[in-house]
Amino acid sequence: MPTYKAPLRDLRFVYYELFDAESLTALPGMEDAGEDLVMTAMEELARICEEVIQPLNAPGDEEGCRFDQGKVISPKGFKEAYDLLAQGGWTSLICHPDYGGQGLPHHVDIMAGEMLCSSNLSFAMYQTLTSGAYLAIDHHASQELKDYYLPKLTSGEWAGTMCLTEPQAGSDLGLVRMKAEPREDGSYLLTGTKIFISAGEHDMTENIVHLVLARLPDAPAGTRGISLFIVPKRREEGGKLVPNGVTCGAIEHKMGIKASATCVMNFDGAVGHLVGEPHKGMRAMFTFMNAARLHVGIHGLALAEAARQGAVQFARERLQGRSLTGAKYPELEADPILVHPDVRRMLLACRAFTEGARALTAWTTLGIIDAEHHPDPERRQAGDDLASLLTPVVKAFQTDLGFETTNTALQVCGGYGFTRDYGMEQFVRDCRITQIYEGTNGIQGLDLVGRKMPANFGRSLRRFFHPVSEFIAAEAGNERMKEFVEPLAKAFERLQRATGWLAEQSLKSRDEAGAAATDYLHLFGWVAFAYLWARMAKVAMEKEGQEDALFYQAKIATARFFVQRMLPRHSAHFAALLAGAASMMEFPDEAF
Amino acid sequence: MPTYKAPLRDLRFVYYELFDAESLTALPGMEDAGEDLVMTAMEELARICEEVIQPLNAPGDEEGCRFDQGKVISPKGFKEAYDLLAQGGWTSLICHPDYGGQGLPHHVDIMAGEMLCSSNLSFAMYQTLTSGAYLAIDHHASQELKDYYLPKLTSGEWAGTMCLTEPQAGSDLGLVRMKAEPREDGSYLLTGTKIFISAGEHDMTENIVHLVLARLPDAPAGTRGISLFIVPKRREEGGKLVPNGVTCGAIEHKMGIKASATCVMNFDGAVGHLVGEPHKGMRAMFTFMNAARLHVGIHGLALAEAARQGAVQFARERLQGRSLTGAKYPELEADPILVHPDVRRMLLACRAFTEGARALTAWTTLGIIDAEHHPDPERRQAGDDLASLLTPVVKAFQTDLGFETTNTALQVCGGYGFTRDYGMEQFVRDCRITQIYEGTNGIQGLDLVGRKMPANFGRSLRRFFHPVSEFIAAEAGNERMKEFVEPLAKAFERLQRATGWLAEQSLKSRDEAGAAATDYLHLFGWVAFAYLWARMAKVAMEKEGQEDALFYQAKIATARFFVQRMLPRHSAHFAALLAGAASMMEFPDEAF
Repeated sequence: MPTYKAPLRDLRFVYYELFDAESLTALPGMEDAGEDLVMTAMEELARICEEVIQPLNAPGDEEGCRFDQGKVISPKGFKEAYDLLAQGGWTSLICHPDYGGQGLPHHVDIMAGEMLCSSNLSFAMYQTLTSGAYLAIDHHASQELKDYYLPKLTSGEWAGTMCLTEPQAGSDLGLVRMKAEPREDGSYLLTGTKIFISAGEHDMTENIVHLVLARLPDAPAGTRGISLFIVPKRREEGGKLVPNGVTCGAIEHKMGIKASATCVMNFDGAVGHLVGEPHKGMRAMFTFMNAARLHVGIHGLALAEAARQGAVQFARERLQGRSLTGAKYPELEADPILVHPDVRRMLLACRAFTEGARALTAWTTLGIIDAEHHPDPERRQAGDDLASLLTPVVKAFQTDLGFETTNTALQVCGGYGFTRDYGMEQFVRDCRITQIYEGTNGIQGLDLVGRKMPANFGRSLRRFFHPVSEFIAAEAGNERMKEFVEPLAKAFERLQRATGWLAEQSLKSRDEAGAAATDYLHLFGWVAFAYLWARMAKVAMEKEGQEDALFYQAKIATARFFVQRMLPRHSAHFAALLAGAASMMEFPDEAF
Repeated sequence: MPTYKAPLRDLRFVYYELFDAESLTALPGMEDAGEDLVMTAMEELARICEEVIQPLNAPGDEEGCRFDQGKVISPKGFKEAYDLLAQGGWTSLICHPDYGGQGLPHHVDIMAGEMLCSSNLSFAMYQTLTSGAYLAIDHHASQELKDYYLPKLTSGEWAGTMCLTEPQAGSDLGLVRMKAEPREDGSYLLTGTKIFISAGEHDMTENIVHLVLARLPDAPAGTRGISLFIVPKRREEGGKLVPNGVTCGAIEHKMGIKASATCVMNFDGAVGHLVGEPHKGMRAMFTFMNAARLHVGIHGLALAEAARQGAVQFARERLQGRSLTGAKYPELEADPILVHPDVRRMLLACRAFTEGARALTAWTTLGIIDAEHHPDPERRQAGDDLASLLTPVVKAFQTDLGFETTNTALQVCGGYGFTRDYGMEQFVRDCRITQIYEGTNGIQGLDLVGRKMPANFGRSLRRFFHPVSEFIAAEAGNERMKEFVEPLAKAFERLQRATGWLAEQSLKSRDEAGAAATDYLHLFGWVAFAYLWARMAKVAMEKEGQEDALFYQAKIATARFFVQRMLPRHSAHFAALLAGAASMMEFPDEAF
């Protein structure tokens, strides 16, 4: 069974050496949230993750959730671990002090999210969904609703969900049918069925707060007629919580995240309240959707990290064959498989992905913090532009590569990796959903090329292109950095060409954008990773002589592996997208 | 739930239009096995697969195998389906008439294998393992052993297994410890434990014939001291079958192929007989290992085909969103997702893989038939060279891409794909083992670069290089073929350069070959597919005006998709391998 050690050293590197999260202490209300406080808290959470939450991961998968007459029974130990987190204040890290939260900057939640999801993704989902609900209410609901709901969500006494999907409405939310009938007192009665609702019903909390997309009676068709409602599982009546016409009809049997309840939710005249303006639910929904998409990108990273650690452990312990250049451990019956170049290739691919993803996640997160908190409006805009642009890349690239990484890690373990007793195959099964939920990765590609790329005449895109150009220009004369900057410059030049080509082609036919979307997103992801790896190598070079020399040496060596052995993959996406849509669109429908 | 339609039209295309399997009727003993007879038989088997065996697939996964006091109980319906196959003669297609078989050419077994594995891989394994055992006995055992065992294996009354792996000996069979003690009557007593034995114990047959790697008392260490034995579960004593000291100690709980029993087998002084010469077991083992590896390549193809069909069905039925260029079905609430370029991209990627893999499998198979049956010794040698060379490519490339394809197909189905009820996720779980069993794909890469590539001073390699060169030269002036031949020529030139580079580097350090192996194998796979796709496009062009126009049109369109949108991936492998081993080997061990 794999164990888990939280990558605290690398988190510190990413946030406090590569980026300057210490500067966040200049933001109003975050004066105390310096590196020492943040990393001390993370050490404490790491211990809980390693010792309490990760040990529940395999048993939770084995036991799964049980459904019994409308009730969902979570696996043994989940409720106790949830209470431990809530009581320790770990559910309220970034919640506002007005509602009982700790008001810490967002990156604390992101670091915590990675560790929780590496330890036990199914378990973590009971909590992260609540964060999404908190965010949506905080941004869009009336003060009255905020005052009622946010303290309960902050304390973890109540949990939250997002109810979007219906049987006929998945990627296309314009097809949502759930009805909301206005009542005289200003509330609404909601009726309809939602499916695939994560944590829709469970036994962690006394109440569950659903954020529900539905249609008012006068709603226009399509996405312009969708409103957002808050609908609790139990509503207060005479000081008591009473059932509110929200019931769980079934839970899904799934490939993975078996300890996370994925529910069919029936709303039968449930009382709810409008959040934000009528018919503007999609806009409100995008607030928590973007946050959720960033979190799903972290799921990809987190499972890859957990799997990587399992693979390294196996590669050190498994004795099989001899080094191709002669026995490295002649005293043993065979060498550990870590000596084999192909095993090292797999382990380094895992490492280059997880550390690159951690950096990309951090960059996006710091953009969000700027967007929310920076006193300078120009910096707020810049942060928002960058985070909006990078979010679909984080979501799709990090889950596509995250899934690939869990499989690479399983492969290192050979036949043992395929057995359930060994724990590696669970990472693969759990990770598979991350490419789908919160918008399939195909949808992320469309979001990038159709929405984010052209947004504000390319202003968002320039928030990425400018720092990359400037970095390449600044390092042009740095001989030691050449091995990283030259491949970056080549890939970046292709991304720029692809962007120009795509802008031009999209004017001819929108199918061209659709056909290029996934390859463009991957090309973008590889360039973003190349930029961050070059920057990480530079930071490491500057610190190599100091303490922790092995850490910095490994960082530079991983950067080298990345540019030499992984970055070349960008070229396939470049060539594929330039080939255009014809080969897809001209294929006869009846011949598929 | 996905249904399955056997791809009989494409099998016919590959064997009788792309290749000339009809010419096999010129081989001695195969006079009757022409296209009509073969394809009629395949139609009959297709019906059994579609109507009897595929419907057992999902229930078999759900029920799994049960282990009860040494007995393995297979899922409901498996035994009846097995008997149906045996009684219909489907277990004896390529077995020799001397032993009751039908003596059909090998490609009949390959076509049947694809259909059986698409329908139900777990089920198919009870039969294909028997074929492997048949082959090993037929090639290496004494006439007495053949006369005793082969009729029972041919009729399907007895099943077979291959017992190689031990807890400490997986990829490295030199570490095998199983002991074989000679007895005075010429038989041996075998003692030890084997693990990961597919179909090691089950309830399909009255007896199971194990082929076991073990060491004689005087055996030298390593692979040069391994001998092959035949050890039945029950041996005959006084005309009755009695237990022979072979027991199943446990079955594995696995990610997939849950209806296939993967057994821990304990041999406790079991009586066996030597197959072939003492200490030459590895050589004999490679006979059935090569056959088994080809079959595993077919597992990758077969699951990808089944998953592809499920994805197409979903894409036609699922209504979601509108075509980016305006509604295609305005009368419906939404368009079927088949209209979306990114969905078409995924479906065509599945198709280009499955049809390419079917062609590569066929080419390899026809090499094996030549090697076994051709009257001309030069043709026998050529067939053997080609099949030996292509086998690791078929095994690894078709399972790596096959697994990718099952995932692409699942992705088309979005959230539904992740649920167990929908049947798509089983293809992914079942396919994952194909990258591991019969030698991990990393081992296949080493086989290709370390053994097959340099074999006979590159003679095997020339069996591939020459037809590709000749084809490119022959089509140089064909304007219609230019779109296929130019990309092929470019990729082929890179493969040649990579081969030269590798031959040179390997002399400097064997780690260079090890580091390049996986990328080289994939580069090889892409080039092989590009060659076969170009040839398939050519055949289709020549027949386009005839009946079945849509089939040929789709073939050309798929070839176009392949060269434009998939073949570019070869360049990443080319660039990665040329970067050499340093980035892997210089990474500090303690920093992994």
